[in-house]
Amino acid sequence: MGHLGKQTIAYKTPPVITCAYSSVGPKEGQGPMGKYFDHICKDELLGEDSWEKAEARLIQTTIQGLLDRASKTPHDIQYIFAGDLENQVIASTFGVKDFNIPFFGLYGACSTMGESMCLASMAIAGGMADLVIAGTSSHNAAAEKQFRFPLEYAGQRTETQTWTTTASGFVTISRCGDGPKITAITPGKIVDLGVKDSFNMGAAMAPAAVDSILIHLEDTHQKPSDFDAIITGDLGNCGVDIAIDVAKRLGTDLSGVLMDCGKMMYDDEIQGTNSGGSGCGCIASIFTGYFYKQLMARKLKKILLVPTGALMSPGSTQQGNTIPGIAHAVCIEMK
Amino acid sequence: MGHLGKQTIAYKTPPVITCAYSSVGPKEGQGPMGKYFDHICKDELLGEDSWEKAEARLIQTTIQGLLDRASKTPHDIQYIFAGDLENQVIASTFGVKDFNIPFFGLYGACSTMGESMCLASMAIAGGMADLVIAGTSSHNAAAEKQFRFPLEYAGQRTETQTWTTTASGFVTISRCGDGPKITAITPGKIVDLGVKDSFNMGAAMAPAAVDSILIHLEDTHQKPSDFDAIITGDLGNCGVDIAIDVAKRLGTDLSGVLMDCGKMMYDDEIQGTNSGGSGCGCIASIFTGYFYKQLMARKLKKILLVPTGALMSPGSTQQGNTIPGIAHAVCIEMK
Repeated sequence: MGHLGKQTIAYKTPPVITCAYSSVGPKEGQGPMGKYFDHICKDELLGEDSWEKAEARLIQTTIQGLLDRASKTPHDIQYIFAGDLENQVIASTFGVKDFNIPFFGLYGACSTMGESMCLASMAIAGGMADLVIAGTSSHNAAAEKQFRFPLEYAGQRTETQTWTTTASGFVTISRCGDGPKITAITPGKIVDLGVKDSFNMGAAMAPAAVDSILIHLEDTHQKPSDFDAIITGDLGNCGVDIAIDVAKRLGTDLSGVLMDCGKMMYDDEIQGTNSGGSGCGCIASIFTGYFYKQLMARKLKKILLVPTGALMSPGSTQQGNTIPGIAHAVCIEMK
Repeated sequence: MGHLGKQTIAYKTPPVITCAYSSVGPKEGQGPMGKYFDHICKDELLGEDSWEKAEARLIQTTIQGLLDRASKTPHDIQYIFAGDLENQVIASTFGVKDFNIPFFGLYGACSTMGESMCLASMAIAGGMADLVIAGTSSHNAAAEKQFRFPLEYAGQRTETQTWTTTASGFVTISRCGDGPKITAITPGKIVDLGVKDSFNMGAAMAPAAVDSILIHLEDTHQKPSDFDAIITGDLGNCGVDIAIDVAKRLGTDLSGVLMDCGKMMYDDEIQGTNSGGSGCGCIASIFTGYFYKQLMARKLKKILLVPTGALMSPGSTQQGNTIPGIAHAVCIEMK
């Protein structure tokens, strides 16, 4: 391990992402990424009687799918790093608990996939464990009810607003084995440029995404073209434009290499999702469902995964606070 | 580093807790532990106009106090591991953000001090950083409003109910330096024995506390008397009795060595706190304010710190779910 700059860790023995699994809701399954996901749920309730319980079931389904694919049992896993958007990350609690795996509950808003992969890879690279699980989820109806309005209210959506995905993605991270490796991470600082519009999360998160990307490039002495793709979480159509603009003003052109899972998740014109997809599960499911497979097939060799989070709560916004952003950058390479 | 059993990590080069700082509200300052805390706030609002902002200010005050005492600036700190009880751990976001330190947001309910110390010590022991900060907070009025009833409602409190502390504690953890060392950790599993009474958190958490303590003892081949104290977070009067009883049924007598910060925080008869104190800040402030100093003075040589959390959300309880518990055990030794 070596520190590069203050924020970046470059692993001498890079942890391996040995397996990945994605589960999504029906709307995500109908989108352009639909064919890549490992499991598409028939409906948003997954047999449960509340949206919140449905999200816990989605997590459980994804972890079980991951364990099955990896031919592992819960007993093989030392720790699990997970979080979600629900108050008190309660979906993760109920999604994880029956596996009886020691649990680190995380909250990084939609950056949680990055946070969990950072901490899980640190545990592996530091020799603390041989095999751990990292992942996250979000559920459209649970999130809308909690953060905005219940769906039944049929509120009008703004053009800058994204559609919280019903999606989950989990990975196994190991000291050895086959698969793409996490070679370096740049855990993010909280960046607050004063955005207060909770219907424009892309604007709130874009500065944090640019901050972590530029620090990663600087710390590792690389340029954007050294990556096959730099992939943000859920900036959406509006946020991506802001991120490219902010980076350009700071002297870095991200326009050719920046991809955003929020932009990729839906066909906005057909599916009416306005600025695109969002939620922890957006980048989690697209990474595990699509990018992971592209890496395994060596169609991509090196990506910078940058899950982005808007650190707000409804109460905080109602009290007039800003919406700070955070983004964690994870460099993943396939040799 | 060596794994001991499945859950426990014993550090070959134990991270050092080089500094600690505690801040509490006026009620906690008037309690039996009052003289040990580093900072006692004059009122519960700390100059802010909401309870939620007051908690963020409490965190900021505590971290600044810690940095001052340690003669460090934020630039010296590589990562901060923090969380609280507010929805979306928003108090930590606003308490931490102006320090510009890369941030891992955590949610472990009242076990968060244990979770943050586990992850921070893993980062240090694994060579990922030289100096990090770990800690947590809770605020009585913010927590009561969110989890139970606003204070103005003047709800009657049950005998099993604890009093959420207004308190925060943070530590610096380093690769070297003077101070007590974290020699081993046992991150906890989620334990769910079916408790559903959100006014009896002690009962919900006691089985998890016993689980992590017994696994730690088994993995490290130790017995309770090998420790000067085994210190749970906030089981309170009712929870401690349950924990001792559960442990006894499993063949281990904890009665002589088990201390609980929930029992220590208040004088229940004078202060009307019923089953004792609770909240992430309870064990965080008593560890940083009292036990850390006892270790530094070598009045204690070896303790097992076991912050305990009840993994519930108001919505989850209303939907009829159980309240699972979790506890992370951290062995701290002063040579």
